[in-house]
Amino acid sequence: MRVRKKKWAIPYMDKHPEYLINDPEKYLGKWENRFKNNAPIHVEIGSGKGQFIIGMAKKHPEINYIGIEIQDSVLAMAVNKAVDNQLPNVQLVLTDGKDVDSFFEKGEIQKLYLNFSDPWPKTRHEKRRLTSPKFLQSYQNVLPKNAELEFKTDNRGLFEYSLVSLNNFGMKFSSVNLNLHHSDEEIIANNVETEYEEKYKEKGPIYKIVAQFT
Amino acid sequence: MRVRKKKWAIPYMDKHPEYLINDPEKYLGKWENRFKNNAPIHVEIGSGKGQFIIGMAKKHPEINYIGIEIQDSVLAMAVNKAVDNQLPNVQLVLTDGKDVDSFFEKGEIQKLYLNFSDPWPKTRHEKRRLTSPKFLQSYQNVLPKNAELEFKTDNRGLFEYSLVSLNNFGMKFSSVNLNLHHSDEEIIANNVETEYEEKYKEKGPIYKIVAQFT
Repeated sequence: MRVRKKKWAIPYMDKHPEYLINDPEKYLGKWENRFKNNAPIHVEIGSGKGQFIIGMAKKHPEINYIGIEIQDSVLAMAVNKAVDNQLPNVQLVLTDGKDVDSFFEKGEIQKLYLNFSDPWPKTRHEKRRLTSPKFLQSYQNVLPKNAELEFKTDNRGLFEYSLVSLNNFGMKFSSVNLNLHHSDEEIIANNVETEYEEKYKEKGPIYKIVAQFT
Repeated sequence: MRVRKKKWAIPYMDKHPEYLINDPEKYLGKWENRFKNNAPIHVEIGSGKGQFIIGMAKKHPEINYIGIEIQDSVLAMAVNKAVDNQLPNVQLVLTDGKDVDSFFEKGEIQKLYLNFSDPWPKTRHEKRRLTSPKFLQSYQNVLPKNAELEFKTDNRGLFEYSLVSLNNFGMKFSSVNLNLHHSDEEIIANNVETEYEEKYKEKGPIYKIVAQFT
């Protein structure tokens, strides 16, 4: 998702160092200290405006959440939501998702979410897709064995690609859903929506994979 | 697909022993003799009225095709198509698809097709689905390493189930297509349709997986 630059974004985030992290490498092996507890850490790469990660943090106070986002203009909105809700279990990181293994140690995080990532439809951009092998390798480098990846998208091409890519990487599928918002009531009730999902769920199917690293 | 019993089916098939096989166990390790050549053998389980298997046989005279179907009333129509086209490279077997390893030796067939199999939506009927682990095991027993399975369905539940089942069985996906009839022209041009597919392709997506046994 590309959004217009917001002039207030950087100054606003600078005022909230309790939520915003610019130098995540500093916390390598030390995220426990940052959260001041040793609850499990779940990470979303590409957290955008933060509706998902903030929603999860409110729903699961027993889990610590880290949202990673490269665009300051959208991350500022996520910081704003964290400030408004005064959530102790959220941290937001302004950086590129491809470097997760430079700021988490193996086993330091327990679960990973990818929601509505950029589909990068051109073949020559395959390497930029967040489910391409190099990214999967960096996730595997930081997750423990059998850790889960949850992936949602409304993009058919990215979903087809991701099914093949995750499978070829040796990941084990727990579930595949071809139309998340037309599923059992329980599935819909447990789903935390992103801003994008809320807007586009009526326009076409939202696809989801839950898969384990092996 | 269930169809009304046709009285003519059995007597008609009895008149065409050159195409119809009732006792496939007899050919275990000897299919070469039946076809009178050693071309590769591709098998469809649940070949119904035969439009797919006959279409493939016409398109690929260099391949031998075996269609397996348990319902005599539909298989008779497949036999009728083989007779009309006088195809030397088709054999039709009246039996249950679950027993393939009782009539093929390991490596005797090279490829397997499953098209629009019965979805058996109830959980207690999972074992009847043609992509459940026991069936996959019997296919693996007869296919060589890296052999392909091609699977098409219009049933969302069966497709979701099959993606998980094939993945969990250790199969390697070559491609996944969530809407076969809205794909690149080349993909559509190369697709041989079943009767069912021809009728239902406009009503909703046709899903396809190509996966390799490992």
